[in-house]
Amino acid sequence: MSSSSSSVLVNKEMQSLAAERANPRFNVRDLTYLLDGGKEATELKEKFMLELERDPLWRMDDHANLSLAEVRERTMAKARLIVHFLANEPVHVFRQRMAVISVVDPAFWTRLGVHYGLFFGALQSQASSAQLQYWVSKGALAVNGMYGCFCMTELKHGSDVSRLCTTATFDPASDEFIVHTPEVGATKWWIGGAAQSATHAAVYAQLIVNGKRHGVKVFIVPLRDPKTFELLPGVAIGDIGKKMGRDGIDNGWVQFTNVRIPRSFMLQKHTKVKRDGSGRVAMVVDSSATAKKALTIAVRYGAIRRQFQSKASVLPLLAQTMAMHFTGVQTDKMYVSLMEQLDRAQPGDNMDKAHCTWLTLNIIEQCRQTLGGHGYSSYTELSGMAANWAVQCTWEGDNTILTLQSGRFLVSSYRDAQKPNGKSTLAKGVAYLAQLPEILNRKCSVDLAADNSLTAQVLCEAFDVACATAVHKAGTEFETALKANQGDMERAYEDCAQARFAAAKIHAAGYLFARFAEALADVPQDLHAPLYRLLILYGAHTVSEQAGAFLQSGYFTPKQLGQVQAHLNKVLKEVRTDAVPLVDAFNYTDYVINSPFGRFDGDIYTHYFERVKRLNPTPKVHPYFESTIKPLLNRSMEDIEGPELDD
Amino acid sequence: MSSSSSSVLVNKEMQSLAAERANPRFNVRDLTYLLDGGKEATELKEKFMLELERDPLWRMDDHANLSLAEVRERTMAKARLIVHFLANEPVHVFRQRMAVISVVDPAFWTRLGVHYGLFFGALQSQASSAQLQYWVSKGALAVNGMYGCFCMTELKHGSDVSRLCTTATFDPASDEFIVHTPEVGATKWWIGGAAQSATHAAVYAQLIVNGKRHGVKVFIVPLRDPKTFELLPGVAIGDIGKKMGRDGIDNGWVQFTNVRIPRSFMLQKHTKVKRDGSGRVAMVVDSSATAKKALTIAVRYGAIRRQFQSKASVLPLLAQTMAMHFTGVQTDKMYVSLMEQLDRAQPGDNMDKAHCTWLTLNIIEQCRQTLGGHGYSSYTELSGMAANWAVQCTWEGDNTILTLQSGRFLVSSYRDAQKPNGKSTLAKGVAYLAQLPEILNRKCSVDLAADNSLTAQVLCEAFDVACATAVHKAGTEFETALKANQGDMERAYEDCAQARFAAAKIHAAGYLFARFAEALADVPQDLHAPLYRLLILYGAHTVSEQAGAFLQSGYFTPKQLGQVQAHLNKVLKEVRTDAVPLVDAFNYTDYVINSPFGRFDGDIYTHYFERVKRLNPTPKVHPYFESTIKPLLNRSMEDIEGPELDD
Repeated sequence: MSSSSSSVLVNKEMQSLAAERANPRFNVRDLTYLLDGGKEATELKEKFMLELERDPLWRMDDHANLSLAEVRERTMAKARLIVHFLANEPVHVFRQRMAVISVVDPAFWTRLGVHYGLFFGALQSQASSAQLQYWVSKGALAVNGMYGCFCMTELKHGSDVSRLCTTATFDPASDEFIVHTPEVGATKWWIGGAAQSATHAAVYAQLIVNGKRHGVKVFIVPLRDPKTFELLPGVAIGDIGKKMGRDGIDNGWVQFTNVRIPRSFMLQKHTKVKRDGSGRVAMVVDSSATAKKALTIAVRYGAIRRQFQSKASVLPLLAQTMAMHFTGVQTDKMYVSLMEQLDRAQPGDNMDKAHCTWLTLNIIEQCRQTLGGHGYSSYTELSGMAANWAVQCTWEGDNTILTLQSGRFLVSSYRDAQKPNGKSTLAKGVAYLAQLPEILNRKCSVDLAADNSLTAQVLCEAFDVACATAVHKAGTEFETALKANQGDMERAYEDCAQARFAAAKIHAAGYLFARFAEALADVPQDLHAPLYRLLILYGAHTVSEQAGAFLQSGYFTPKQLGQVQAHLNKVLKEVRTDAVPLVDAFNYTDYVINSPFGRFDGDIYTHYFERVKRLNPTPKVHPYFESTIKPLLNRSMEDIEGPELDD
Repeated sequence: MSSSSSSVLVNKEMQSLAAERANPRFNVRDLTYLLDGGKEATELKEKFMLELERDPLWRMDDHANLSLAEVRERTMAKARLIVHFLANEPVHVFRQRMAVISVVDPAFWTRLGVHYGLFFGALQSQASSAQLQYWVSKGALAVNGMYGCFCMTELKHGSDVSRLCTTATFDPASDEFIVHTPEVGATKWWIGGAAQSATHAAVYAQLIVNGKRHGVKVFIVPLRDPKTFELLPGVAIGDIGKKMGRDGIDNGWVQFTNVRIPRSFMLQKHTKVKRDGSGRVAMVVDSSATAKKALTIAVRYGAIRRQFQSKASVLPLLAQTMAMHFTGVQTDKMYVSLMEQLDRAQPGDNMDKAHCTWLTLNIIEQCRQTLGGHGYSSYTELSGMAANWAVQCTWEGDNTILTLQSGRFLVSSYRDAQKPNGKSTLAKGVAYLAQLPEILNRKCSVDLAADNSLTAQVLCEAFDVACATAVHKAGTEFETALKANQGDMERAYEDCAQARFAAAKIHAAGYLFARFAEALADVPQDLHAPLYRLLILYGAHTVSEQAGAFLQSGYFTPKQLGQVQAHLNKVLKEVRTDAVPLVDAFNYTDYVINSPFGRFDGDIYTHYFERVKRLNPTPKVHPYFESTIKPLLNRSMEDIEGPELDD
């Protein structure tokens, strides 16, 4: 982006952005290094961005104008190049490449992900080592000779693996399994890669031996001949068609009619079949990566428009993004260290996934709205981003269900905390429950009228008390419901659903605050101030938005809450000064931003107009003037009269 | 829909919906009449729905699969039929027809709306009677010989009419105006109908006479020859291209280069040029009409899925929809009676528009998410509805700006209320300010532990106190800022922007509650109970969601707020029983719902699968297997080695 610094500032818009950068209060490049995890990581990202930008296949500016068929084909064409890197790059480098790609083209990321993340991931976690070796020898790792998809969800059953209806019946005579779709509702549905890419599937099905069900297992089922792409006998596949977003991924439906596979195609590792947590962890990291892109557009445009109001409204979103960033870094670290203990993944991870993907969807939409009417154009990028993102709130676990599960985890942690010695077993994220019941009566004793009195410490305590109160409320409601329902846990959980949901929501917001605050301990001195301001902004904004929870907890009085809002106004003005340098530090090139409104140089209208004209050339002949408009505008106005009647 | 009652309930899904309808606690048909405004209105709507359903041009199930070009053409083709009705139906009947159409095909509604609502509307409000007569004689009313568009917004200037840059310079020698686009930023932008439909434009431009500016006036500028559709000299038009939604409307950009028009083409009525309020009023009515469609889908699917949680989450949205319905009815009545006094439209109307369009966008998205993964399919309708709706939050005034303006109105009402005799001039919507300062100290004195103690009266007072408190806060901040800024009103308003926004938000929510409560006074006895439950649900849910405002006002104690939430849980269960009959009363046919998940008969999976298959037939030949997939899956794995080097 250094190239832009030499260009002439030919208009007011460019001058506005240059002025915002005149006196940054921190070293922008240093912040980039911090966010990326070091200079080398930044330079690697820049290398990836440049490679993509220069590859014609990776052109993204015309995406909105492509038909479904065109997007599908172009997306698949990209695979060949990326598969090359996969074979030649260390895993951690390839992973960083894919992280950049997930922001540039989420549909491609998914399309490759169904093979690598889901299909090959299923092999890694469910296959015996002999089986894994077999499928690798068939090309599963190299994507040569086979392309996998992941047949879990069914038309009627999305998230609950145990209720899947597809069957795999063992036939001792032939030593084979017979894979079968017993009814329309059991049709495998939403299967990414099935419609146009996959030769093999990892199929989740009920194992039946001697007429007895043995639970859901995973079976590798060949779908198509890799040489001809003909469907194999008994396999029916169709296209799911148009989606809200991510059209580059070819979701399909699959029905099996007595498809026979060798016994050895059932994956053998006898772990309980379930999704693993890796997808959800990645989604927390993705959340901030995507939110950064949205904010770069909104903040730069906001600085140009000079409308204080709309700018101010995106600043809390910037703070949320930074909180998600540091939460993602820590979650990712924890995940790597837990790689081998996936089954122990805490329900707390679900909460992050649900909370961060919802936050990000809201951030994108709010950023889109700050563009005014231009946010409705497909060429300003944010509408497409929202459409691509929306599915993150559903797949890998529906957010509402995950949030309720998290609430369940909080209630059960609360019950643990009531037991003798129970407090010692509490997870780190719910440490505040160890301080029950004292914490419920804690009040803010700081004089919030004083400057800078709203510290991280005060906010941290405020979150702890608000969370403890909300969890206590859910826990108490649960106990009451348990009695009323004669010990029926399920019904009791259902009866306290609203309170569980509320507890999970405030807990997730507080968890982000704690991770963000924790991360600041390691931040070099010169970058601490701008990040600390964002931390306070995140906290004060959350308190203000969810004031009910903080007032109900009794930690703040209504008067103190008014003071928190006064601090919020002040820190908003402070952060306003940093806003453009902060989004600059996200270090996305104009290619990645892919929106004239988020250009580094601020020359937005020139490039917006140019893009609209280039992508919508006027046809030489009006496509339907003769057939449709001419007859309308030149019609005869005579009334239609019937013949006269003989009376 | 009566036809469905005779069909056999062949699956569990159909049985579930039938069971929901077994014992309705109110007469569904009577509620339909009430909502529509009488039996005749209902029957008229049913006639319109049937006519559209049977007309092949009005097919909507395949919409998601059409290209931009196809949608544009099909949308225009519909105009001819509708123009026929326009010529032959009384205005109030045609208006009801268009109300149905706005839910079925919002893009068509807009495409006709740019001519009738905007272009012809500009003539009606800005032309002298001689001018109006002239343009009617040219075909402006009959859409014969001309099709109008409305050139107001410019690339750089959206909402602020006074800052538009297009010029109309009077040339005394020829007695003409010269209409001109002085720079790229002044390009007319987002002009609906300009790209492919319009022959004439109502152009907003700065009038310049003898080198002096005389403010913005409206000029009728011919764009194209109606016989050939050739652009006239000096007119350049291009297509804005792909949008988030409403692709059926052909938004374009227009540049004028010294285009000459006769002096008489400047509209003569010397009213101050501004948008009128009719669009905004219509949008309140549209909000509930669209929200009803979204809820029909979500509630019916929810009843089938039998997952209490997700169903419960849509019930408050159902209450919001009903509140918007009754607010719309009343606003519409007020608008009709004020037709001749448009300039006196209160800023309060803006608030309704902003609040209701935001609410509706949220309702659609929440409903979409309750469909789980299927909400991401374009064939379940809600994703397209959200994309179509989103623009409502921007056009006819950006919601954020409107909300801040409403906040300004509240602050100025607050200041009026401080003046001697000022209270008598307060608008009805802010009557609570007449009770200042006593109202600020009012507490809830009702024992909320008792059954049915959370009455409409209690909630009404709670809203009044919360609104008064929020307005008082904004007003106080304004006064402080006014002093700090040496009397600079603009800066003072800017400094209290956060508080203004918060005040406008709670005020709008309270306004809806008051209108809903008021409407119930006229409701027949047998329908009162289900609607009253929704009123309490709306109120209790709002108190719970915006608990901060209600606690900060001091009206409820934290303990009482907990009791309100307990009432909320109870009323949720009550409303749950009514949910399916309530959405049945909205009386949209399956054609209008256009989603297998919202079918009246509940046979959702059969029809969803059928639709997906029908709209996505498998092509005989894979479109890119040979070119793209085969080379990938069958590639040679040899490393690329260079020649050996001579060392």
